[in-house]
Amino acid sequence: MRNIVVQKYGGSSVANTGRIQDVARRIVKFKRLGYKMVVVVSALGGTTDKLIELSRQITKYPSEREMDMLVSTGEQISVSLLAMAIHKLGEEAISFTGSQVGIRTDSSHTKARIIDVNATKILKELEKNRIVIVAGFQGVSLKQEITTLGRGGSDVTAVALAKSLNASVCEIYTDVDGIYTADPRIVKNARKLDKISYEEMLELASLGAQVMQPRSIEIAGRFKIPLHVRSSFNDKKGTVISEEVKMMEKVVVSGVTVNKNEAKITICDVPDKPGAAAHIFKVLADKNINIDMIIQNISRTGATDVSFTVNRDDLLKTIRTAKEISDKIGAEGVTSDDDIAKVSVVGIGMKTHAGVAAKMFTALAGKKINIGMISTSEIKISCVISRKKAQDAVKALHKAFNLSKKAIVKER
Amino acid sequence: MRNIVVQKYGGSSVANTGRIQDVARRIVKFKRLGYKMVVVVSALGGTTDKLIELSRQITKYPSEREMDMLVSTGEQISVSLLAMAIHKLGEEAISFTGSQVGIRTDSSHTKARIIDVNATKILKELEKNRIVIVAGFQGVSLKQEITTLGRGGSDVTAVALAKSLNASVCEIYTDVDGIYTADPRIVKNARKLDKISYEEMLELASLGAQVMQPRSIEIAGRFKIPLHVRSSFNDKKGTVISEEVKMMEKVVVSGVTVNKNEAKITICDVPDKPGAAAHIFKVLADKNINIDMIIQNISRTGATDVSFTVNRDDLLKTIRTAKEISDKIGAEGVTSDDDIAKVSVVGIGMKTHAGVAAKMFTALAGKKINIGMISTSEIKISCVISRKKAQDAVKALHKAFNLSKKAIVKER
Repeated sequence: MRNIVVQKYGGSSVANTGRIQDVARRIVKFKRLGYKMVVVVSALGGTTDKLIELSRQITKYPSEREMDMLVSTGEQISVSLLAMAIHKLGEEAISFTGSQVGIRTDSSHTKARIIDVNATKILKELEKNRIVIVAGFQGVSLKQEITTLGRGGSDVTAVALAKSLNASVCEIYTDVDGIYTADPRIVKNARKLDKISYEEMLELASLGAQVMQPRSIEIAGRFKIPLHVRSSFNDKKGTVISEEVKMMEKVVVSGVTVNKNEAKITICDVPDKPGAAAHIFKVLADKNINIDMIIQNISRTGATDVSFTVNRDDLLKTIRTAKEISDKIGAEGVTSDDDIAKVSVVGIGMKTHAGVAAKMFTALAGKKINIGMISTSEIKISCVISRKKAQDAVKALHKAFNLSKKAIVKER
Repeated sequence: MRNIVVQKYGGSSVANTGRIQDVARRIVKFKRLGYKMVVVVSALGGTTDKLIELSRQITKYPSEREMDMLVSTGEQISVSLLAMAIHKLGEEAISFTGSQVGIRTDSSHTKARIIDVNATKILKELEKNRIVIVAGFQGVSLKQEITTLGRGGSDVTAVALAKSLNASVCEIYTDVDGIYTADPRIVKNARKLDKISYEEMLELASLGAQVMQPRSIEIAGRFKIPLHVRSSFNDKKGTVISEEVKMMEKVVVSGVTVNKNEAKITICDVPDKPGAAAHIFKVLADKNINIDMIIQNISRTGATDVSFTVNRDDLLKTIRTAKEISDKIGAEGVTSDDDIAKVSVVGIGMKTHAGVAAKMFTALAGKKINIGMISTSEIKISCVISRKKAQDAVKALHKAFNLSKKAIVKER
């Protein structure tokens, strides 16, 4: 089928019934331009948090299977309301849960991965000239259990659908105008990027730009699905995420990001035996805990501290697990610190340009900001710093790399 | 499997997370006494109304399919929270939506009827020694659409499950201690009934006793499933609903009820041709509108008024439909009145005892209450009166039939 557009609307775009009606008008406008519309919707802004709060009133450690039953209701509410709003505008629309529409996942509750998407049902509804509305963030396991895809999972749903339906574009509607060189709330003269590559976006997202879910960008990149990140509050063009384009090669650093959603955990005095680290991270992986940075200090005394960062949501679970590991392997105990932030600079070509790291560390030092952990990749450098220094760090880095100007000339 | 108990908890029994934890404790107590527990839960008190209000903010005439998508989330929230609360008490529990557990219905959205229940999944979980928690009020159609069973549908779910699982009892937990001879909020000396027959309960329920859903009592009666209506706020014995027992034959009137949920609609000056009434009620039935009382005045002029009552929820839809019918058949138009109440006296043996109707009309006349419509059955007499006279009527009737005393002696 031709001309299929997948649109995804986040929680702030459907925060209340007024916003839902705005979104309905936008969808109907696209439909009347001749597009086949498939729309993925998140829960009404705040709903998921309210549901999580209910579970917290009952238990600190809810079953993940039951959490998925609980929070998946959020999207079911928004899709049905959006369908009603579209009906009112005189177009046919039908809403589906992830389960109904065949978004099949593995059984990792609260963090499920999509196995495949059965596009047949959607295509059949599109043939009937209907707008198809799909609950984001959720799927169904082979055992017919409701699963959810983790934070930002609605983006994953949208991209997976765009792939399965061979859509011409996947538009991600949000409450910002696009991707900026830094958070505009922190850096006043941050600049909106017209285009960005999947790789850069991936680093920006996983580092806390909080506009798109990293897994969704991975999938989009793998299948070359053009993404368009734009605002549901206006009609401005946003940022197109696609394959690397020529201009980008000339830019070294394309953005600065900060992530305040991580916490640091240290297992102290781990006996320095082969396989100790492997054991630690295998147990954590078995518990489905995603690790970000890892640092192991050099051992002088036959024991060593192993530090790593995890998402703050996983902190309690991780501490419990780390304590069990510590006891098992004869370490001295576990400490944790959630008063941290991770600042990063991102850019393609960074690796082939000397001095980016030096410039970053100098800029932080100039603001008397201590660096706790460092990690690097092909296209980013990240530093863990004190949480309260996060804003100063971002501002300093944005300035040091001159990001408020379109940098067509090579840096340094 | 032996010793299966089905318990149903209504919205007030799970009004908040504190109440959910109370309910969990009660369920676990039963479980530890050796019962196999299957629990049906309604939405948290007030949730369904909040969801309906959201839909109203968007449209007056929501698609019924989408309404089912929307409101079915209420029970999904409560079952998952209840499962968490039971886990916390150290027992295994698993929650299911109506769809997951195989409550198959027809496709009449918002008023679906159960076709059958696939008990296999539940029995399998019970064998694993788990408490099974099922979302009330909802099912799944053959097209895999989510359906709901209409007001009080959770009772229907509970009774249907009790039947399919061959349960030894179906307990209906609510916020009252049992079935009373009249609403204790209206009649101070109303008396709790220890036992009542399905037939009497059926009339009491369908007439607005609002404790149990009529369809659930029909099913229970058809399959002789003992029901026990009791409070989730204490451990008192409630009212057992079972086959007619000897004592009951001696009682003429067992209760007085009032229903304020109906509205009256009149199609004026309907041409007095054969098939006119048939046409009217066929069209209404096709729209899935349930009619309660019907009155057609005698025609002197070749045209006649047809009046009937419907549930107030269906009022807008019914007026629209009635207007279409009126245009089609050349009637003069449609009037409606939702300022009405229906009071009824109910009792087995009423038919074989003269004077019950006369006593009822006399009692109402004594309070200067006009009677609008009258309908009678084997075991009840109902009168439509002005809404504001409803309480007076109930008090007068309760007194006239001497219901505050256990009436073992025959009423006149």
